[in-house]
Amino acid sequence: MTKTVGVIGGGQLARMMIPAAVNLDIELRVLAEVEGSSAALAATSVGDYKDIDTVLDFAKGCEVITFDHEHVPQPVLAALLASGVAVRPSPEALKLSQNKIWMRQQLEQLGMPLPVWAAVSRAAELNEFIAARGGRAVVKTATGGYDGKGVRFVTDAEQVADWFAELGQGEQLLAEEAVPFVRELSQLSARNPSGDFAAWPLVETLQQNGVCTEVYAPAPGASPTLQRQAQSIARTIAEGLGITGVLAVELFERNDGKLLINELALRPHNSGHWTIEGSITSQFEQHLRAVLDLPLGETGLRESVAVMLNILGGPQGGIPSAYQALLQDGEVKLHSYGKNHREGRKVGHITMLGKSLDQTLSRLRKALESIQ
Amino acid sequence: MTKTVGVIGGGQLARMMIPAAVNLDIELRVLAEVEGSSAALAATSVGDYKDIDTVLDFAKGCEVITFDHEHVPQPVLAALLASGVAVRPSPEALKLSQNKIWMRQQLEQLGMPLPVWAAVSRAAELNEFIAARGGRAVVKTATGGYDGKGVRFVTDAEQVADWFAELGQGEQLLAEEAVPFVRELSQLSARNPSGDFAAWPLVETLQQNGVCTEVYAPAPGASPTLQRQAQSIARTIAEGLGITGVLAVELFERNDGKLLINELALRPHNSGHWTIEGSITSQFEQHLRAVLDLPLGETGLRESVAVMLNILGGPQGGIPSAYQALLQDGEVKLHSYGKNHREGRKVGHITMLGKSLDQTLSRLRKALESIQ
Repeated sequence: MTKTVGVIGGGQLARMMIPAAVNLDIELRVLAEVEGSSAALAATSVGDYKDIDTVLDFAKGCEVITFDHEHVPQPVLAALLASGVAVRPSPEALKLSQNKIWMRQQLEQLGMPLPVWAAVSRAAELNEFIAARGGRAVVKTATGGYDGKGVRFVTDAEQVADWFAELGQGEQLLAEEAVPFVRELSQLSARNPSGDFAAWPLVETLQQNGVCTEVYAPAPGASPTLQRQAQSIARTIAEGLGITGVLAVELFERNDGKLLINELALRPHNSGHWTIEGSITSQFEQHLRAVLDLPLGETGLRESVAVMLNILGGPQGGIPSAYQALLQDGEVKLHSYGKNHREGRKVGHITMLGKSLDQTLSRLRKALESIQ
Repeated sequence: MTKTVGVIGGGQLARMMIPAAVNLDIELRVLAEVEGSSAALAATSVGDYKDIDTVLDFAKGCEVITFDHEHVPQPVLAALLASGVAVRPSPEALKLSQNKIWMRQQLEQLGMPLPVWAAVSRAAELNEFIAARGGRAVVKTATGGYDGKGVRFVTDAEQVADWFAELGQGEQLLAEEAVPFVRELSQLSARNPSGDFAAWPLVETLQQNGVCTEVYAPAPGASPTLQRQAQSIARTIAEGLGITGVLAVELFERNDGKLLINELALRPHNSGHWTIEGSITSQFEQHLRAVLDLPLGETGLRESVAVMLNILGGPQGGIPSAYQALLQDGEVKLHSYGKNHREGRKVGHITMLGKSLDQTLSRLRKALESIQ
């Protein structure tokens, strides 16, 4: 009896579940927003994930519903649960990634390390927060942000006047201290409903304009203590909040070595794309195993170092027009998302494993430069 | 511009091309024999590969046509070529794997090491051959054999009287010496139309009743000389006969250390399934790269040892019914072909990488025993 997993959202995360599903003989069904989506090969339905009937119809015959993104409205999720289908991660858990203020409230209750934060409703409140944090702060919209969108560094509430103006009844903005960090890290893990938990090695991520560009696994020079702390944070969150599936915890490493939580993602995450080649179990296979409550796979590194570079924008003619350049180095592993060129858009990524971070990174950067 | 590859045949080899095609953003179209084939996810057509119109229709819009099996008749291949589509490997090259006598004639002209063989038309000829080879011989049908079918060990021509009776005008059987071998090896390689050639490490294969059960990469204890010889044989054949795509050369290692060619396959091969996890480039990705004339990927091992075990027959309820058992060891990489249970049928395989052959093999065998 083949098991059927329904994925809401047809982006590259759903796309990259296809190889894992083929290998394990899991039937993957995708509800895509548009024809010709990244996950077109498995897209059995095209429709609006905000429409309850569309989603209920899609879910028929699926053993479990999971997600390519965090934007499915709670009433739709509730209707899914009521229809008897398993939803993993659960609607309750998904709220964490749907509302940044709710997420911080929950994490605080678990005693998790967070940047100083406040939920603010008015400019005066924000200016008070800014003043108390040395004259600057990060402001985030509570919902809807991604890849640097919905995030602003401000010195005065005036700089987010438009966001305040748009707030609905009872809505707030999130104000956070601008953390003086030395680097950003990401702790990827997975948990299944039986309670098995598995964490990948801690990785370092590089961002440009709020968009991830490079990931190094393992995080260079991370002490065993730091790695244990990061895994313990991930485990506490996953177990404390009953999260199933893959969980990415984005972290700041502060100047004094302390870890602070930046954001959470309750799904496969850009900081885990390196696991496809670099780990015994990829995050996409692990996510499917986790939401189906199968035993989790080992998460060790296959090589000393794995490096992943995002392809942003990509060549004008699309990635296939640049195969010769991208594949010239026979160790480059290419992942193209079937997307057309658009400035800054994540259209694919390349991964390489190696003995040395410097050499591996330099070969990958050369491959990327060849198409720019 | 996405490149489109058409695959004739919807078996597990076509199925295992899907992940590679997804990664590279190659559009894979499959002409399957039946609905619900192994490669159903990419099966855009269902029809008879012996029917010229069906195949020509399927090939429309494909940049290149390649194969999951070697059974497409030459007139169909000729019509494909005439229609202007690239066919890789070429019809001429495919003849090698379609007719065992033709194959030996061609290899002999290249000076390749073969068991003593003869094409025989009558019982008397065969008995003469048997007598000259010490009273026993292997007899093979020239066409249509696979997985031990079409192969018999005989001491008298009487034992293949049925095959002689079925021979058509001008057809012959192949008689070969029963090679006193210490083990069977396989040399996998790939070549693209530009002439790039890449060989994977030589592997050892274990057969039971003519069916491959286990593969060890690299071949334990193989000397550099032996590895060079095997690669040189593969390269001479690929270049000498203009083969494109993946080529598997099945070899006997004789008691005296000499290599003799057993059979050829001009496609991804069971002896190369370990490459999915075990090599930098899998045979399925390499085959797609080769037939599209893209640069070939590196073929080194990812770990000291890779072991692959076929799942023959599998659990009564199909592989998904045995996930818990098969995935209990978190390093087992499972590949299920979406096939129902049938005694002796290849329904999937499992692979593990490791430092030691003994330990890796014993863990894999334990996983396999758990479902038997």
